Amino acid sequence: MTDGVTDRRPVLGERTAAVVGTGLIGGSVLLRLRAAGLDVAGWDPDPATRRYAHEQGLAAPDTLEEAVAGRDVVFLCGPLPSLAETLSRAAAATEEHCVLTDVGSTKAEVAAAATAQGLGRRFVPGHPMAGADRAGLASATPALLDGAAWVLCPTGSGMAAFRRLAALVIDVFRARVVPMSAPEHDVAAALSSHVPHLLAGALAGAVQRSALREAVLALAAGSFADGTRVAGGPPERTANMLLANRGPALTGLDAVRAVLDDLADAVRAGDPATLTDLLDEGRTARAAVGGRVFTAHRREFPAAVDHAGELAYLRELGAAGGHLTECRVEAGAVVYTGRLPAPPG
Amino acid sequence: MTDGVTDRRPVLGERTAAVVGTGLIGGSVLLRLRAAGLDVAGWDPDPATRRYAHEQGLAAPDTLEEAVAGRDVVFLCGPLPSLAETLSRAAAATEEHCVLTDVGSTKAEVAAAATAQGLGRRFVPGHPMAGADRAGLASATPALLDGAAWVLCPTGSGMAAFRRLAALVIDVFRARVVPMSAPEHDVAAALSSHVPHLLAGALAGAVQRSALREAVLALAAGSFADGTRVAGGPPERTANMLLANRGPALTGLDAVRAVLDDLADAVRAGDPATLTDLLDEGRTARAAVGGRVFTAHRREFPAAVDHAGELAYLRELGAAGGHLTECRVEAGAVVYTGRLPAPPG
Repeated sequence: MTDGVTDRRPVLGERTAAVVGTGLIGGSVLLRLRAAGLDVAGWDPDPATRRYAHEQGLAAPDTLEEAVAGRDVVFLCGPLPSLAETLSRAAAATEEHCVLTDVGSTKAEVAAAATAQGLGRRFVPGHPMAGADRAGLASATPALLDGAAWVLCPTGSGMAAFRRLAALVIDVFRARVVPMSAPEHDVAAALSSHVPHLLAGALAGAVQRSALREAVLALAAGSFADGTRVAGGPPERTANMLLANRGPALTGLDAVRAVLDDLADAVRAGDPATLTDLLDEGRTARAAVGGRVFTAHRREFPAAVDHAGELAYLRELGAAGGHLTECRVEAGAVVYTGRLPAPPG
Repeated sequence: MTDGVTDRRPVLGERTAAVVGTGLIGGSVLLRLRAAGLDVAGWDPDPATRRYAHEQGLAAPDTLEEAVAGRDVVFLCGPLPSLAETLSRAAAATEEHCVLTDVGSTKAEVAAAATAQGLGRRFVPGHPMAGADRAGLASATPALLDGAAWVLCPTGSGMAAFRRLAALVIDVFRARVVPMSAPEHDVAAALSSHVPHLLAGALAGAVQRSALREAVLALAAGSFADGTRVAGGPPERTANMLLANRGPALTGLDAVRAVLDDLADAVRAGDPATLTDLLDEGRTARAAVGGRVFTAHRREFPAAVDHAGELAYLRELGAAGGHLTECRVEAGAVVYTGRLPAPPG
């Protein structure tokens, strides 16, 4: 089998890249790629951002097309509503071997747009998990995404592109690549990110409306400061994210509200045993954040034949909370190092 | 006017202290007081904790009574349900000039217990605002409470004790003393701390119950990690805190749920303008966390006469989101340096 996105190029062999949308995330991607020795250009629709990038010594041409022409890989990092259009423009301005990806916080919508545009082989939906309570190129740093969990969505037809991109982000960003289908990503991201944004917004909003606003802020220590941190991010960006993942976000919110109802009932009833049990359930999940033990394994698949086994392996790995720390193609085989969490005890 | 808790002792003049309940907070209070040069003893009902304290070179007698006898000030740092009893025992084992305070996260209940025990002149309800996702003396550090907002509840009859304690915590902990009535504290603390604990517990609990638990945890980045941090704390302690402030916690939760409903409606309706406006409301409150500008002022009151003006000043200061950074008694006057936030713009 030969893909337009070819296995012939060596994995880890990407030499040139472009970033479309050089805000906090895109700018950080660009700076890290440049630091890793890639020839990388950035483009942003905002002339002031292009000027600022130019002043910082970055290649920042005036058009998207100039920025992406001839590149091996293009990262689309603009706002979610812009992705379908920038994807189409970037695809038209690059060769067939160029891998396209994005860093948006929801995946099903952009994956569907890519399929509709006939770009399933070249486009790999992506989502690096990184905090973002700031915005703009001036806040970007090469280290922002270092070591991040980075979702990439493999498909049967896009497997070669997936491998090249996985190898690149592992090599350059030391990313933990979490392979997931786009719809499964969106359901998991609802609970891991979108619902937390709703809760933070509601908490901060309730304080803003409170007659005791000033006194509450005077007492704001750890729990309030932590619980509202993401409410400090740009409202437009958060709104885009929530609206692009409407269904899963509302379903996830309902799940949280159900637990909240249980907690409130126990408080109202003055029932310490039930309340403690409920809080202990949450503590179990919380303890697994950053505290899981992973076991490494190695898997190998033929590089050039049917990808069904490889795809099944990758999706199972992601669903089990695992990630890849290595991906390379050598002697007709693709070799993965995967890491799986120990089962919850 | 002469108080049992006397103005005759120089402010900043406390020389001996005791801490009852040497967990994370009590242990940290003890270590800081000792580092500041006070002669301080600690007592904990747990023999292993007393033994550990002894091994660390701390004065850790076997009984509460031995620990507090002859001390100038006693900090009650045990669990909320223990406070009424330890208050009574500490009061019985100390002289009339000894100031008693606590560090519990709700104030109306313990204030009522003190009044019922006839301790209104000696007991000053207190609450230092500090993160607490760990527990135990082994996690205590002298710096834990440094610079914290520290609520103290002044009353007309307890003014002399309030002044001595305010001076002590400002001097030793560089605390920002927030003067508030006990009930007002509890309403403000519900939104600044108790509701955030409920939201964190509900979010972590929903993930624990989710079929996609592993995948969600794999994606858990900033917003989930921050939004669930306090869900990692001891469930018993959080349950005690919520149950001791039942009414205000449930009222605060209702206020947050109202905003959450508005947010969910806007997401469901696919209404970016309303959603952005709602999120912007929250951002305004969030921006004020740690970002407020304060203006200092100086106020002076006669030390020994009617305290109504002083009390009114203190409570208005707290309600306006302000705090004290100085309190001293000299030449028959009490001198405060207060700091008020600039009005929200």
